[in-house]
Amino acid sequence: MSPERLTAFSDGVIAVIITIMVLEIKVPGEEAGDTFKALVPMIPKFIAYLISFIYVGIYWNNHHHLFKLVRRINGSSLWANLILLFFLSLIPVTTAWSGEHYMSKAPVMLYGIVLMCCGIAYRYLVVTLTKCVKDNELLSEGIGDDFKGIISVVIYLMGIIAAMFYPPLGIVAYAAVALMWIIPDRRLETKIAHHKDE
Amino acid sequence: MSPERLTAFSDGVIAVIITIMVLEIKVPGEEAGDTFKALVPMIPKFIAYLISFIYVGIYWNNHHHLFKLVRRINGSSLWANLILLFFLSLIPVTTAWSGEHYMSKAPVMLYGIVLMCCGIAYRYLVVTLTKCVKDNELLSEGIGDDFKGIISVVIYLMGIIAAMFYPPLGIVAYAAVALMWIIPDRRLETKIAHHKDE
Amino acid sequence: MSPERLTAFSDGVIAVIITIMVLEIKVPGEEAGDTFKALVPMIPKFIAYLISFIYVGIYWNNHHHLFKLVRRINGSSLWANLILLFFLSLIPVTTAWSGEHYMSKAPVMLYGIVLMCCGIAYRYLVVTLTKCVKDNELLSEGIGDDFKGIISVVIYLMGIIAAMFYPPLGIVAYAAVALMWIIPDRRLETKIAHHKDE
Amino acid sequence: MSPERLTAFSDGVIAVIITIMVLEIKVPGEEAGDTFKALVPMIPKFIAYLISFIYVGIYWNNHHHLFKLVRRINGSSLWANLILLFFLSLIPVTTAWSGEHYMSKAPVMLYGIVLMCCGIAYRYLVVTLTKCVKDNELLSEGIGDDFKGIISVVIYLMGIIAAMFYPPLGIVAYAAVALMWIIPDRRLETKIAHHKDE
Repeated sequence: MSPERLTAFSDGVIAVIITIMVLEIKVPGEEAGDTFKALVPMIPKFIAYLISFIYVGIYWNNHHHLFKLVRRINGSSLWANLILLFFLSLIPVTTAWSGEHYMSKAPVMLYGIVLMCCGIAYRYLVVTLTKCVKDNELLSEGIGDDFKGIISVVIYLMGIIAAMFYPPLGIVAYAAVALMWIIPDRRLETKIAHHKDE
Repeated sequence: MSPERLTAFSDGVIAVIITIMVLEIKVPGEEAGDTFKALVPMIPKFIAYLISFIYVGIYWNNHHHLFKLVRRINGSSLWANLILLFFLSLIPVTTAWSGEHYMSKAPVMLYGIVLMCCGIAYRYLVVTLTKCVKDNELLSEGIGDDFKGIISVVIYLMGIIAAMFYPPLGIVAYAAVALMWIIPDRRLETKIAHHKDE
Repeated sequence: MSPERLTAFSDGVIAVIITIMVLEIKVPGEEAGDTFKALVPMIPKFIAYLISFIYVGIYWNNHHHLFKLVRRINGSSLWANLILLFFLSLIPVTTAWSGEHYMSKAPVMLYGIVLMCCGIAYRYLVVTLTKCVKDNELLSEGIGDDFKGIISVVIYLMGIIAAMFYPPLGIVAYAAVALMWIIPDRRLETKIAHHKDE
Repeated sequence: MSPERLTAFSDGVIAVIITIMVLEIKVPGEEAGDTFKALVPMIPKFIAYLISFIYVGIYWNNHHHLFKLVRRINGSSLWANLILLFFLSLIPVTTAWSGEHYMSKAPVMLYGIVLMCCGIAYRYLVVTLTKCVKDNELLSEGIGDDFKGIISVVIYLMGIIAAMFYPPLGIVAYAAVALMWIIPDRRLETKIAHHKDE
């Protein structure tokens, strides 16, 4: 099977996820008034929205780069992709909770656990696509040993543990992983470029 | 007519359905606090979300496999597809209700009725595509007598009746059907593979 | 310009409209309980959802048939299409209001006004596509004099006026128009079939 | 990389943004009643929805025209596009706030700031596509010096300053920019037409 509909469906789900997050940012109520001061309590929520928008954006970017090198998919990769979408769909609600309670350990740890699950699910998707499906040799070469993916999970774990003692440290760790990934996977981009030249 | 726009539209609707379900999982309120304990009352809702995510995922997967073998559609198949999407769109609200009241017979029975309607609507779509439209002979051969579809409706019915006496039994029945379908339709996959080889 | 992205965007907007309508059907609250009786007050809302689902489905179907015969679009047709999407986007909220107050004239009349605006906007889109753009001669022949479109507007008007005296009469009129359109535009289907045979 | 998936994803996000805005228009509550009078307090919200629908429609239109001339994208243009989508996603909530408080300076100024950020982000996307990516010479010629883009930012700034003294003046300024852009970019349309003729 070719991956056109899988990418179209994933685009749809990710587009809805990235957009419904903004529904969490509510208009200040009547009692809060209509001044710039009314916006001050919304700042942590806004920052949480910004971080999660970047995260979902990163996943969309990497998903986009990944499937540029995928020629065929099978039933297992459809499910691996759905598992990734499932964990991505949990980002909005955990974002909203830790945006409201960024000084509390439970919300910040839960946010880190969901981000780590996303990372593992993405890795599982890559493994499924490279190991179980023929015709994706190009991808296997492009991905290599996935040093960045392993490092991310380690930093997530460190962030989750750090959040047990001082929650904002966890958020710093998650932001560090985001920064590391903002640069799209150069290995794949190089591979795609080489492939097109041949 | 070729089915490209039908599949694109269905992907869009299913993507929105699968993602808005997560909106039912609300951030714990201020009074519930910011500890892991605040998450405990959300566990049944989360499990209901998980089951429904799997169900909608199964329908997307089977829809995906089905249309791999469809060459032409007509006006009747457009409507048969809309009927399926209508019943799928009722899954989020019935999920939320039975997630809150998993020990009560009305929500669990209603959930089963909606799932059964989805199953029947899917079967009706398949019949419409195979019987009323030419050029889909490949599909007719691939589908066969649809033993799995008939069994599903029987188990749904048993689950709905069982829920009248002990509601969680119904949920076990629905989960059993989901498990049976997680494996995508091998008959179609084999057919697609053969078709590509020729 | 070719219409691929216009149809993709329209599919997206219509998919979101048709799915967010179901968000209006809320789970019965804690005080309403968990019995089938709790569902009784939701019946008018459910019927309103069903009618609007059918209406949006009809528009998607006709839009689908229409663009099968469109070869080129221009700036004006992009805007004509956006105007149609704007009025379609008002269907969910007017549906919800007349679902709650089906015995009151204001909600039922407003619902009819929005449906009539959708009908006029659709007609305007068709006129823009046939009159202002070259290469769509096939469409002009396929559409003909649009008897059904004119009749619909007349019935909408009659329904709006009837709703001033006895609101449910309005709903009957709108349902009659829906029934008339459930059958997709045979003229276009015939035209498409002929075109493919040549 | 070719831009197909980027445009598909952008269409999805913009389709969700344009449709969730209407969720802000709530059905009048039980106490407001079921008469046409109940709609009067909703008029400013409706006008705000209309203006924002037009704005998002303009961005979709221009995005559509822009990518007609784009042959290749790179990692930077993926991010430039995400930045634009981020600011567009803030339009619904700032619309809702200034729709409720159109006589207050904070909401109207914030609305202008978000619109200005959208304008700058769009300009940044265009620059990224023309300067950093080869194969888009056609686009560079088509865009020219972007007089309209610069004028827009100047009018936004004037509107934001005017809103400090008399808020409705700001809304007039934003509406003026919208009017200026309703006509899609003729320069690009001409360029596309020429390109097709060759």
